[in-house]
Amino acid sequence: MKTTITCACFLIVLLGAPRVHADNDDTIEYRRHIMKTLDEEVGAIEQILAKRVPAESLSTHLSVLAITASTAKKAFQTKVPGGQSKPDVWSNWPDFAKRLDTLTSGTAEMARLATSGGIAAVAAKFHSAVSCDGCHQQYIAPETKGK
Amino acid sequence: MKTTITCACFLIVLLGAPRVHADNDDTIEYRRHIMKTLDEEVGAIEQILAKRVPAESLSTHLSVLAITASTAKKAFQTKVPGGQSKPDVWSNWPDFAKRLDTLTSGTAEMARLATSGGIAAVAAKFHSAVSCDGCHQQYIAPETKGK
Repeated sequence: MKTTITCACFLIVLLGAPRVHADNDDTIEYRRHIMKTLDEEVGAIEQILAKRVPAESLSTHLSVLAITASTAKKAFQTKVPGGQSKPDVWSNWPDFAKRLDTLTSGTAEMARLATSGGIAAVAAKFHSAVSCDGCHQQYIAPETKGK
Repeated sequence: MKTTITCACFLIVLLGAPRVHADNDDTIEYRRHIMKTLDEEVGAIEQILAKRVPAESLSTHLSVLAITASTAKKAFQTKVPGGQSKPDVWSNWPDFAKRLDTLTSGTAEMARLATSGGIAAVAAKFHSAVSCDGCHQQYIAPETKGK
């Protein structure tokens, strides 16, 4: 009887516990969703800065970039090589993490600037603050699929 | 002399004024950036709800969905047929806009739920609140490129 109860309790604990079965493919796919969100939002912002579409959502897009950069840092924190990520992401983790922090703070600051100064204020800072290429050259391998 | 000054002032006003040259391709590309952001964030959330990746950013992804749905409403407001958008987007604008408002409010509510109730609380509501298919069937033509 005692064994039955113990087994039942063990089963309840097992079933009730949060279970996450993240394999490498899942982790890589999740990172890719986040990096593609960044890509799409940068694309929208670049259209606005080029005055090809109205600027009414400029501050909002910049806020989404800031928020998404913070989720990227969490998504890459666990060492799961693969996709386009070079091993440097984890061997140079403090630098990689710092770049994402800088992206977060820089885009959040520009979101505030967009509200007060509009396109001109953001355009003066955007391409130095959001320097995707510098980070991609060091941490992203272009020859493989995924991110 | 007066004419020269007047012309110069007119030129300054012209150059200084915000100029947006949005043609249809720009508008369609901009909408596509926004819709792809929604797709990527839904993809990330579905991975979390399936417990394939950690849930630490669940509330954040839901907030990004809410914010992005609000930018979608603004991006579609001007009638620019093309991409995958059916004419119904504008002929049924009150319904289309209401669906985006519902997506915004529903995902914002789930972002709060995620903080208090975690995955289980969100999973119970996500697929009814974020019913992409229903809206896509009515407003998105699958046979053409773009959105």
